[in-house]
Amino acid sequence: MTTMQTESKPIILITNDDGYFASGIKQLIRMMRPLGKVVVVSSEQPMSGMGHAITIKTPLRLKQTASEFDYEEYVCNGTPVDCVKLGEQVVLKHKPDLVVSGINHGSNASVNIIYSGTMAAVIEACIDGVPAIGFSLDDYSSQADFSHLDAFVQSITRKVLENGLPEGLCLNVNLPKKQEQGIKGIRVCRQAHARWVESFDSRRDPRGAEYHWLMGEFENDDKAEDTDVWALENNFVSVVPVQYDLTAYKYLQMLREWDMT
Amino acid sequence: MTTMQTESKPIILITNDDGYFASGIKQLIRMMRPLGKVVVVSSEQPMSGMGHAITIKTPLRLKQTASEFDYEEYVCNGTPVDCVKLGEQVVLKHKPDLVVSGINHGSNASVNIIYSGTMAAVIEACIDGVPAIGFSLDDYSSQADFSHLDAFVQSITRKVLENGLPEGLCLNVNLPKKQEQGIKGIRVCRQAHARWVESFDSRRDPRGAEYHWLMGEFENDDKAEDTDVWALENNFVSVVPVQYDLTAYKYLQMLREWDMT
Repeated sequence: MTTMQTESKPIILITNDDGYFASGIKQLIRMMRPLGKVVVVSSEQPMSGMGHAITIKTPLRLKQTASEFDYEEYVCNGTPVDCVKLGEQVVLKHKPDLVVSGINHGSNASVNIIYSGTMAAVIEACIDGVPAIGFSLDDYSSQADFSHLDAFVQSITRKVLENGLPEGLCLNVNLPKKQEQGIKGIRVCRQAHARWVESFDSRRDPRGAEYHWLMGEFENDDKAEDTDVWALENNFVSVVPVQYDLTAYKYLQMLREWDMT
Repeated sequence: MTTMQTESKPIILITNDDGYFASGIKQLIRMMRPLGKVVVVSSEQPMSGMGHAITIKTPLRLKQTASEFDYEEYVCNGTPVDCVKLGEQVVLKHKPDLVVSGINHGSNASVNIIYSGTMAAVIEACIDGVPAIGFSLDDYSSQADFSHLDAFVQSITRKVLENGLPEGLCLNVNLPKKQEQGIKGIRVCRQAHARWVESFDSRRDPRGAEYHWLMGEFENDDKAEDTDVWALENNFVSVVPVQYDLTAYKYLQMLREWDMT
């Protein structure tokens, strides 16, 4: 892949958290190929809900699965964050011009970003100083329809390729499910203050021992119109600027006044 | 555990990401027992580097391992985030008054928070509206000395039990390694803008196939004196106020001016 470095087309590293076989990544690859040289590093297994996990207890394996003009494809046994690290360090041996992740089968709006492997890959690239965008479709079906998204995904990607992104900033883009009326447009917005209310489906196995399946329902009390959840519900693409500095600056002074010593 | 709810001592849920057998959690349990009724839910296996992973593909198993006056202990096969969910939903069947996580064997200062299972448990509790604190010792050894920490861990915990924490706020506390000179005090500070520079140790297995071990070196160019890394290097306990709203508010306007439609 070192030959790619010397030419003028941008190098775009693609990953996801649904596995190499998901429709979402295949559609994203198709949309990205006109925009640059594409390197794909994705997981053998679905990695939804893996958050920012990295693989440190087992060795990583990487297998090349395609090599065409301006296109290379690899599969590995790691998490989405591992995919970014392997893509940069082992495959490219340099930083790409852009990392794109997705298109996730399911929304990563609001607090979903915290659990999302798709967005963890994006945040990992951001920590490395590489502009990065996560794309997610508000449709959990593995048969989801992605045919209404090309113009939006490509337009946002082109803007990032043209303008770059400031240090420490990446984008969380969520796309509305296909509906009869077309998408209304793009909204730059904030993460809604919603959350999952968990429950467990507790059962007994054939030997009588109890086990628990994690369940949950998404609950949104944040009804403001400047959120990603509002945008999706109103058939807009949501673009949230995301940072990985988790410091709650507004509470520094309050805590200093606690006098904890 | 429902009996606990009716009495006046606070209920403290403890978890970690190094496994139930780690010295760090045993020390934390010892420090917390004088402060309330303690319920421990920890992992069978070390879960370092698991970030905010949750278990959705396999069922969760939970086993009670101790029951004493004002003390219950459980072990499960899940991640630190699963431990918080199981503790709240299956064990307590209500929210605890406080979640504490750790004491982690190794620093979670700066960008380590993003990869940390210890802090993921804390952020999970925060999303659930429960005050939460992560404690980490700046010493990676499994034989680390925790004997210099009681006063600091208990003082910070007491302050949180007294004052509560505002919605959406949790604490990332890092503690200096034991040194001849005692700890100088507590600093409320921000997350340092440092990062891991990764590399891979690539090898061949006995069958000739290549595999890769993830390696990395921590690199800190952020030399300001208001950071958690500075505090630890100067023998202070660092307390960083942490939020899970990742919206980079200062860039909302910039992105709106891009006119992506």
